[in-house]
Amino acid sequence: MAANSSDEPVLEELDRAECMKLLAGGTIGRVAFDDGEGPTVVPVNYAVEGDSVIFRTSASGRLNRNLLSAVTGGEVRAAFEVDRFEEAHHEGWSVLLRGGAHPLSEAEKAEVAQVRPWPGGDREAWFRLAASSVTGRRLRRG
Amino acid sequence: MAANSSDEPVLEELDRAECMKLLAGGTIGRVAFDDGEGPTVVPVNYAVEGDSVIFRTSASGRLNRNLLSAVTGGEVRAAFEVDRFEEAHHEGWSVLLRGGAHPLSEAEKAEVAQVRPWPGGDREAWFRLAASSVTGRRLRRG
Repeated sequence: MAANSSDEPVLEELDRAECMKLLAGGTIGRVAFDDGEGPTVVPVNYAVEGDSVIFRTSASGRLNRNLLSAVTGGEVRAAFEVDRFEEAHHEGWSVLLRGGAHPLSEAEKAEVAQVRPWPGGDREAWFRLAASSVTGRRLRRG
Repeated sequence: MAANSSDEPVLEELDRAECMKLLAGGTIGRVAFDDGEGPTVVPVNYAVEGDSVIFRTSASGRLNRNLLSAVTGGEVRAAFEVDRFEEAHHEGWSVLLRGGAHPLSEAEKAEVAQVRPWPGGDREAWFRLAASSVTGRRLRRG
């Protein structure tokens, strides 16, 4: 058998509509940004609103401090990743949004999609990441 | 009841030993790096070797091209994130490695921990991310 036999999973690109549908079905994503010491990744709960994701974090926590300190001209370049993989079948998918993230004002918080964070306590720093690109891949058997 | 009632999950920091133990039990992580257009995140299969993670990707694929083009002075700043969350109980954990990633030579590939990628086909570009920092958090009920 060749190395790439037909029962091995293959990666296929997902179109934007499918990416947004998968994104809408999730509850935890990962924000990636540069905090001044290189790339970092933080899991957050989120909600989808149009082509944006809204996420919340602790106002006093590292994510907020680092994101705020990275904000220049109102926003910081960031990526937002959601995936689901099945260990048993070696199948799954991932979706990636890339764009600018910016903190929400009190007025904006009241208007946007509401996010329900799993952790208790203060989660009063809200951000919106507006997607300038949306890509995704599915790993499935042929 | 106050907003932070005692049955809401709380976030606690994990020590390095616990982070490395959780990391060793996983098979899929997410590499974050700047590809010149901002932060990006790519899921990969991996293996752990000491304080490093080894991951593989397609030699002709975007991850390899972008990682290689981002390499300066032999390495690129990157982060590697692994997590597991339970939707039903709103509990879980995440571990983050930060450090430099560099491509492995043929000689190095033969010597390092072997990674078994789920996707079929060419996965002949290998990288090592050596952790300069290891942090993690657990979300659990009090």
